[in-house]
Amino acid sequence: MPRPIDVLDRSKGKRVIVRLKNGIEITGMLQAFDLHLNIWLEEAEERREDTHIKLGSVLIRGDTIVLISPE
Amino acid sequence: MPRPIDVLDRSKGKRVIVRLKNGIEITGMLQAFDLHLNIWLEEAEERREDTHIKLGSVLIRGDTIVLISPE
Amino acid sequence: MPRPIDVLDRSKGKRVIVRLKNGIEITGMLQAFDLHLNIWLEEAEERREDTHIKLGSVLIRGDTIVLISPE
Amino acid sequence: MPRPIDVLDRSKGKRVIVRLKNGIEITGMLQAFDLHLNIWLEEAEERREDTHIKLGSVLIRGDTIVLISPE
Amino acid sequence: MPRPIDVLDRSKGKRVIVRLKNGIEITGMLQAFDLHLNIWLEEAEERREDTHIKLGSVLIRGDTIVLISPE
Amino acid sequence: MPRPIDVLDRSKGKRVIVRLKNGIEITGMLQAFDLHLNIWLEEAEERREDTHIKLGSVLIRGDTIVLISPE
Amino acid sequence: MPRPIDVLDRSKGKRVIVRLKNGIEITGMLQAFDLHLNIWLEEAEERREDTHIKLGSVLIRGDTIVLISPE
Repeated sequence: MPRPIDVLDRSKGKRVIVRLKNGIEITGMLQAFDLHLNIWLEEAEERREDTHIKLGSVLIRGDTIVLISPE
Repeated sequence: MPRPIDVLDRSKGKRVIVRLKNGIEITGMLQAFDLHLNIWLEEAEERREDTHIKLGSVLIRGDTIVLISPE
Repeated sequence: MPRPIDVLDRSKGKRVIVRLKNGIEITGMLQAFDLHLNIWLEEAEERREDTHIKLGSVLIRGDTIVLISPE
Repeated sequence: MPRPIDVLDRSKGKRVIVRLKNGIEITGMLQAFDLHLNIWLEEAEERREDTHIKLGSVLIRGDTIVLISPE
Repeated sequence: MPRPIDVLDRSKGKRVIVRLKNGIEITGMLQAFDLHLNIWLEEAEERREDTHIKLGSVLIRGDTIVLISPE
Repeated sequence: MPRPIDVLDRSKGKRVIVRLKNGIEITGMLQAFDLHLNIWLEEAEERREDTHIKLGSVLIRGDTIVLISPE
Repeated sequence: MPRPIDVLDRSKGKRVIVRLKNGIEITGMLQAFDLHLNIWLEEAEERREDTHIKLGSVLIRGDTIVLISPE
């Protein structure tokens, strides 16, 4: 039986969009994740309305995440 | 004795509505879920008042969910 | 010694009112519950002030619940 | 050594006041409680400023509770 | 090595001040506590600005507490 | 490999600043701490803008803490 | 398979930016971290809009963190 995080396995090395509880969206190349949905992105970029801010490498804490979607 | 998540088992592969704590509703075809209510949807769509935004594949973190209902 | 959730056992198959942390009330026929107070209702209906919205089958996540009361 | 919940043992079958995180107070006859402070009350009544609303039997989720006091 | 809750052991049977996350302060004679910082007070009194409200016996849920201080 | 709380070990018996989630800062001599970051301070003092309030001994619940810094 | 916190291993002894749930950003030399993302920084500095405040050594509680990024 497939598990929800299997959708992340298919996105390894690809670009995903991560939406945070504070309303911010971060995109980046998915490097790694764990069962808490802690996530490591490369070439990450923050999107807040019209501004894009480069973050580079970033570790996002799972409990701040609403959803993750392959771009 | 039936368990609450059994209602999700009956909805596998069908369209469900997921209501989030931030007030947003997301619909999609239910692919998988786990005991934390982490959910994987395909053909997902976000509904916020009059706007529908296509999300495609999406993993929703269980702790952001208020309720899930088969459409 | 009786446990708090025993009050739910007596309500199986009967209509209960569930009050959520966001102030919304949902009523429905109690099908199943677990120790986290995740709840499965049938013929569910959302009550918000004067409006009643039919939800049908619904799984409510336990951590969004304030109280549950047999109607 | 006495435990905090021992104060509840002394209140079994008596009326208690339960104050919730959302500011509402509920009183009722204490039937049962568990280690999470989930609580089952009978003849429960909600007190919000000047209004008293009869709730009957009610299960209150422990994590919404600030304090419990024998009346 | 001393543990943080040892400061409570020294306060058993004495008056403590408990500050809650909602800004309210409650004082009372410390009867018992556990590792979650659930607390049982006797002769408890709520202090909110200029008003003192007698609560008598009270069980305070640990996760609503910011700090506890011997008076 | 050093652990984050090792920085607290070096501060035992010295004055630390504790910043809480509600924006308040408390300083005091660090007596003890545990893995939840529950903290026991002596000669504690609350700092809120221009006011300093003496608290004496205080137990701060770990989950209300943002950061701890040796003064 | 790499884990999300491996991105922190590569940043040991280097400067990272930590963004907190309350919107504050703190930079510092990463000394240690654990699985809860509790973090020990040296030469830490708080950045809030135009002001930089020196914090020196600091222990940041993991559950207040949104993301961590090597500078």
